[in-house]
Amino acid sequence: MNHDEWVRQELRELSKSLGFRYTHLQEIENRLTKIRTGMKKQEVEALLVVQKMNFYYLSGTTQDGLLFVPLEGKPLLMIRRELERAKVESSLKQIVALKSNREIPLLIQSHLGKLPNRLGLEMDVLPVKDYFKFQELFQTTKLMDASSIMREARKIKSSFEIDLMRKAGEIGKKVYLQAKKILKKGMSEIEFGGLLEATAKKYGHEGLLRVRSLNYEAYTWHVLSGLTGGIVSQSDSPMGGLGISPAFPVGASLKKMRSHEPILVDFGTCFHGYQADETRMFSIGKMKQKFIDAYNVCREIQDSVLEETRPGADCEAIFMKTLRLAEKLGYKDSYLGPPGLQTRFIAHGIGMELNELPFIAKGQSYPLEQGMTFAVEPKIVFPGEGSVGLENTVVVTEKGYEILTPVSQNIFQV
Amino acid sequence: MNHDEWVRQELRELSKSLGFRYTHLQEIENRLTKIRTGMKKQEVEALLVVQKMNFYYLSGTTQDGLLFVPLEGKPLLMIRRELERAKVESSLKQIVALKSNREIPLLIQSHLGKLPNRLGLEMDVLPVKDYFKFQELFQTTKLMDASSIMREARKIKSSFEIDLMRKAGEIGKKVYLQAKKILKKGMSEIEFGGLLEATAKKYGHEGLLRVRSLNYEAYTWHVLSGLTGGIVSQSDSPMGGLGISPAFPVGASLKKMRSHEPILVDFGTCFHGYQADETRMFSIGKMKQKFIDAYNVCREIQDSVLEETRPGADCEAIFMKTLRLAEKLGYKDSYLGPPGLQTRFIAHGIGMELNELPFIAKGQSYPLEQGMTFAVEPKIVFPGEGSVGLENTVVVTEKGYEILTPVSQNIFQV
Repeated sequence: MNHDEWVRQELRELSKSLGFRYTHLQEIENRLTKIRTGMKKQEVEALLVVQKMNFYYLSGTTQDGLLFVPLEGKPLLMIRRELERAKVESSLKQIVALKSNREIPLLIQSHLGKLPNRLGLEMDVLPVKDYFKFQELFQTTKLMDASSIMREARKIKSSFEIDLMRKAGEIGKKVYLQAKKILKKGMSEIEFGGLLEATAKKYGHEGLLRVRSLNYEAYTWHVLSGLTGGIVSQSDSPMGGLGISPAFPVGASLKKMRSHEPILVDFGTCFHGYQADETRMFSIGKMKQKFIDAYNVCREIQDSVLEETRPGADCEAIFMKTLRLAEKLGYKDSYLGPPGLQTRFIAHGIGMELNELPFIAKGQSYPLEQGMTFAVEPKIVFPGEGSVGLENTVVVTEKGYEILTPVSQNIFQV
Repeated sequence: MNHDEWVRQELRELSKSLGFRYTHLQEIENRLTKIRTGMKKQEVEALLVVQKMNFYYLSGTTQDGLLFVPLEGKPLLMIRRELERAKVESSLKQIVALKSNREIPLLIQSHLGKLPNRLGLEMDVLPVKDYFKFQELFQTTKLMDASSIMREARKIKSSFEIDLMRKAGEIGKKVYLQAKKILKKGMSEIEFGGLLEATAKKYGHEGLLRVRSLNYEAYTWHVLSGLTGGIVSQSDSPMGGLGISPAFPVGASLKKMRSHEPILVDFGTCFHGYQADETRMFSIGKMKQKFIDAYNVCREIQDSVLEETRPGADCEAIFMKTLRLAEKLGYKDSYLGPPGLQTRFIAHGIGMELNELPFIAKGQSYPLEQGMTFAVEPKIVFPGEGSVGLENTVVVTEKGYEILTPVSQNIFQV
């Protein structure tokens, strides 16, 4: 059988029967409108989109290629390997094969009738060697940084996107409901984390989380029990955990979980590229009162954030309020990490990546807007003993918020 | 308890009791010697190493930071967040805190007594925005691309590294031995893949694979059954599979596995950052003779590669020989993918990343050397029907090779 014919005739049907949702053209056009508003402000004449998640956002496919977006006129999708599959997945109409990098300016020239004078690139992630390559290919064009244009557009989610995040949250709920049955005394943190992940995959979790960074690797198996919960590591989070080796010194370890320890499970799920992130506490038998008290403080801090969550609220002000509350409740030196290693955010924006806008954090004074989505995660750390925390993913609505991770916030005790 | 004191006093003991292996100083020094040979050739006066795997290779830690390597004298390890943990993990002696990027040239100046005139950066992966930042910080220094220096040094593995890969292979063996018990009719590909991954994690697999690329994301759950095995996708491999959505259109899908289908399991494992990659075939009941025949051809092609594997053998010549063999055996149009989408390599170098040197591939005419490690993976694809394949990770020895993935090569039939 011919592969291309098979793709044209059968891939869409097979994919749909297995739950694939394609991004429809109107959704893409709405996103392009937002992007073009940013382009006009920065006087960027066209974008060349390379990075996978930006590429998916504006094309609906993640096949290997580049997307050219002129300020006016149709975008041009150039595909390196699987052209026919890209045509099934993307609702864009101008989709062409790209045989070599040399062809990029030629295809653009023939699509636009000229080469742009000012071309925006994703300089926040684009490797230097690719930048040099583009300098060679576009010798008369000024290359500009378009990172913030993409970042700004992506910070407000559409109802289509929020629905995908809600679906990710539903997968997470199924995982947490199973978790109580999976957790056993003497099991290692990583074994527990691995089984939770297997459960999530069974329900459609894509198996990976994404973060926009050269070196930071997102992962789902952040299971910390007792003293490993008190260990800080490479990641910018209140507690990193021990991990498996010096090559992956974060998250679950081979340490066995014991009775009465606080077991923190920070587990993210991903559906069609959109993520939901949540944290709940587990214990085998009742955990020590010290941790129960601290967990109740986390709940109180979360609720104080949610109380303020509505369009117009200032992100930095919300964060500073949690600092004062933690201090008042007696947790100044354990809130968000041990002294000297405390993180300075209580919530991170989330969508296709775990570090999107907004940040509810020190130095981030700007208003919340309807359609923003963030994960709020108060955590309390006691070095040498353990940590507790709570995390939910929420969307800012017209008058307040909606929680996208609707799992019971009680401690899961087995 | 004070976090830093806890780390200094207890982290090493806890880590060692859970199987952590630290890279000893002699190993690091041997690696530095190789790197400096490359630096001399390219007249690079010093390196600033940022990317996590290069950083781990030369320091033994992956805590957040930068490593400065002068051509002569000691390297300087600068750590942003968890300084005390880096001191436990790295056997380097000069380890200092880095509070802000502004400090980078100051710390180097005080370590070296001057700033280097020619500074090497990892331009194959370093984001443009970081390059601009370094230009600002080092205004009188020429910034050079040091990617190939790192790449060349890492292509020959030490016995320490080979031992870690052997350990990764042993984890893989345990997974494949369990797999026959896990596989059930009616289970989805992704459920099977998720349970294999959970098994691997239980035995110490780090839970992720790594590849050196902006957009390509490595993953372990490459389980393709029947017709999904005939689907090409974004990745440069003979078959990509269907995946879970347009955001992750590769690997296992929610398709249920049926009797008599060929089920291809391409599963990688990672131990202390070092990977082993292998593929085996499974079936529920006997698979159709067409696939059994094709699988036997894959074994024959693999054996023909291994027959040639020894120091001095030319990589391209080995690849071309497999093309001739596939054609002779009647698989010209299905070997390594469908017509028009066939890949041009039969083996990829492997270590901390899945795309290291060497490539046994078209256009890669250079000799194999003792200590090189690669994954050889003959695969045969029938669009609309399925695919078969075999993969093993091997190290080139003084006179031949050693297989690091010692699992039976028979079809696993349940």
